[in-house]
Amino acid sequence: MSVDLSGDQYFSSNPAPDSIHRHAELVRDFIASHPDRRIALVTSGGTTVPLEKRTVRFIDNFSAGTRGAKSAEHFLDAGYAVIFMHREFSLTPYAQHWSHLKDGFLGLLTEDPTGVVTVDSERQQEVLRVFRKYKKTRDDNLLLLIPFTTVTDYLHELRSIARLLDSVGSNGLLYLAAAVSDFFIPPDRMSEHKIQSTDAADATPTDKVAGKGGENDLAEEEFDNFDSCPPVLRSKRLVIDLDPVPKFLKALVEAWAPGCMVVSFKLETDPNLLIEKAKIALARYQHDLVVGNLLETRQKEVVFVTPGGAEEWIRLPKTGEVKEIEGLIVPAIIRLHDEYIKSHDQKK
Amino acid sequence: MSVDLSGDQYFSSNPAPDSIHRHAELVRDFIASHPDRRIALVTSGGTTVPLEKRTVRFIDNFSAGTRGAKSAEHFLDAGYAVIFMHREFSLTPYAQHWSHLKDGFLGLLTEDPTGVVTVDSERQQEVLRVFRKYKKTRDDNLLLLIPFTTVTDYLHELRSIARLLDSVGSNGLLYLAAAVSDFFIPPDRMSEHKIQSTDAADATPTDKVAGKGGENDLAEEEFDNFDSCPPVLRSKRLVIDLDPVPKFLKALVEAWAPGCMVVSFKLETDPNLLIEKAKIALARYQHDLVVGNLLETRQKEVVFVTPGGAEEWIRLPKTGEVKEIEGLIVPAIIRLHDEYIKSHDQKK
Repeated sequence: MSVDLSGDQYFSSNPAPDSIHRHAELVRDFIASHPDRRIALVTSGGTTVPLEKRTVRFIDNFSAGTRGAKSAEHFLDAGYAVIFMHREFSLTPYAQHWSHLKDGFLGLLTEDPTGVVTVDSERQQEVLRVFRKYKKTRDDNLLLLIPFTTVTDYLHELRSIARLLDSVGSNGLLYLAAAVSDFFIPPDRMSEHKIQSTDAADATPTDKVAGKGGENDLAEEEFDNFDSCPPVLRSKRLVIDLDPVPKFLKALVEAWAPGCMVVSFKLETDPNLLIEKAKIALARYQHDLVVGNLLETRQKEVVFVTPGGAEEWIRLPKTGEVKEIEGLIVPAIIRLHDEYIKSHDQKK
Repeated sequence: MSVDLSGDQYFSSNPAPDSIHRHAELVRDFIASHPDRRIALVTSGGTTVPLEKRTVRFIDNFSAGTRGAKSAEHFLDAGYAVIFMHREFSLTPYAQHWSHLKDGFLGLLTEDPTGVVTVDSERQQEVLRVFRKYKKTRDDNLLLLIPFTTVTDYLHELRSIARLLDSVGSNGLLYLAAAVSDFFIPPDRMSEHKIQSTDAADATPTDKVAGKGGENDLAEEEFDNFDSCPPVLRSKRLVIDLDPVPKFLKALVEAWAPGCMVVSFKLETDPNLLIEKAKIALARYQHDLVVGNLLETRQKEVVFVTPGGAEEWIRLPKTGEVKEIEGLIVPAIIRLHDEYIKSHDQKK
């Protein structure tokens, strides 16, 4: 088996988060408590790329976690247990229904004449419906929340959890909806402190203020920590020089969870690139499905691209019972998972 | 009056958000409905710097909006009306009390025997206390929420709202707690579509897959949109070249809201830089107060630096009635605002 070593090098030079062992324990217990159930690992939300070790600034990927949170609910509806690996403070299953309220959940409440706070009568039905699902999921221990923040946290957690999930074989499904950074800053090029804009490069306060009063009066930058881009070329500018994150999908498919079904997502803004990139990813990583989507239409349509080269668009009808596209995506993937399990059983 | 024109150039080359006129209407009405009240403009949360026009990736500043949301509550407690200009989906006053619950607000609820969803009895007291404040604030129209996302949105909104707030003169207080990006990408250097990492630079899928199968097999990057950093130097790397955001504080103090009291914040990670940078900012921008804080201790201590050069540390006692440092910061600023109003009245 050819396992790419560049991944290993990434993992050894970018330390794992402190939480990794605690999370692995939680995942191990969770898997053990569902021996006969299918388990989906759903990743959700964006990853960050810190620009400084004591992080003030970071690069982020656009993702509120809507796709992941809604999808997890549909997997739970279908009887899956779900490990929900999500960007900290991104949307989570069930809670996501009221995430966009202007006043948060306080806008749902009312105080009755006896001074008891309750859900407003107009919202009772809607809240009750979701609350019951939430409570059943909690009581039956069917949902495990695992948070991450940086792209390095994400990759370490994914490797750790995928390896554990591989123990359930074809019952395991990896649904990789998180928006993962393609680039990162290696630790040896990262600034220790907040990167300074103008003030810090100044000699003294008085010198600065006396000599240069204006708003547009910016000092020369220092780029000691960005050795790849010479400071002499870059006065008054910040230049961030990033390395590509190793493509982890091949290691995941070949080495971390070879027995599980693997679904990845591809988000693009250019329609001309979407299908081509999905096919390249499938051919390169040899996994089971790419769900392609465009930034502007992602709530309304996606395209399933499968290893044979088939493309199938899934579109949300304007009317009908299904109100969100995850209600079509997840059942369609579960049908593919049925087939995956069958073909795997035959091989045994 | 010397108004720096570089700000004007920034505003003319970076378009305002679509919401700016609607927000200005809301602010105008809000100010008009509180003729005899002090009004605080509280800014909160981080700003983003999009890397693409159809944004998938962006640079962000670390800020959940805790400082701003908690501070706004203390201003409201003291009788101020508050315009809360905040990063969309960052913490907001009152709702912030339960933002870090693992299950969101669903964890606070229970279903009673009659099938009515209510706040769990154990949490009633805590929720009731905040709910009553929230409801009074809402009923009296004392809090106006204005969201922003990018640093350009932020600067346009700030200029627009500050100019409106200037009509209340010394009764107006600007409390600039948002974490504003120092750098941005000018529109003419911004990529139209998502910046491609590896796949897009490839010729064709088959070429790609046939010729280059490995995980570490990354294509040469194209940097057409980053003309300042020559692509030839940067194969396999992403280089982001940013310009400094014009220092808007001088324009704010001199031209946008010259009659109002202005408080800025400075967050650093290096203790050796904090006071010096606060003094430089005060000397340069001629505003009324810099609240300095360090990333690691920001919930426990801050330093007030005033134009005379005085430094006063404010520290949260380990015991006592005040449980959060904003409960000390805001009252101390209100005392300075009392003085500001007095001295302003004397000048009349």
